[in-house]
Amino acid sequence: MNHFAFFFEPSLERCITMSKAVFYHAGCPVCVSAEQTVADSLKGDVEKVHLGEQSGRVAEAEAAGVKSVPALVINGQPFHINHGADLSALKS
Amino acid sequence: MNHFAFFFEPSLERCITMSKAVFYHAGCPVCVSAEQTVADSLKGDVEKVHLGEQSGRVAEAEAAGVKSVPALVINGQPFHINHGADLSALKS
Repeated sequence: MNHFAFFFEPSLERCITMSKAVFYHAGCPVCVSAEQTVADSLKGDVEKVHLGEQSGRVAEAEAAGVKSVPALVINGQPFHINHGADLSALKS
Repeated sequence: MNHFAFFFEPSLERCITMSKAVFYHAGCPVCVSAEQTVADSLKGDVEKVHLGEQSGRVAEAEAAGVKSVPALVINGQPFHINHGADLSALKS
């Protein structure tokens, strides 16, 4: 029998959070193409965030360095994929 | 025992060729970051082409719609990832 112990502490949690991939989009044709071809081809889970519908998360994307959508944030680094819309157009 | 038969014909070969992923880059820091984080996280094989060293393949990238590097071409569609250098700067 194996025994597992889980320890949580803020810096570790931050580490885990930063290693995930997030795909920010706005439902535009360029976004859909990037989602189906690039984001869905990545190993592991990719969280998809529609910034037009979840405007409360625009600030989070901006803080990660996202300037336009579609964009992937992987390990805290922003990767803009082609150009669908500027982030400024999605600010409410 | 299994028996395999392979049939080759031009249109099928083209189909197979178009379904592969090619990562075009020029060795720049933006390219290296995109390669290590996005291209290397894709499922399946990704061919990596350094257009500064393989200038004979610039025309192929251009024909696929690549305007700048780093860029991925997946199923014949170009995806520019951030911006390292314009393709025009790599033409010999």
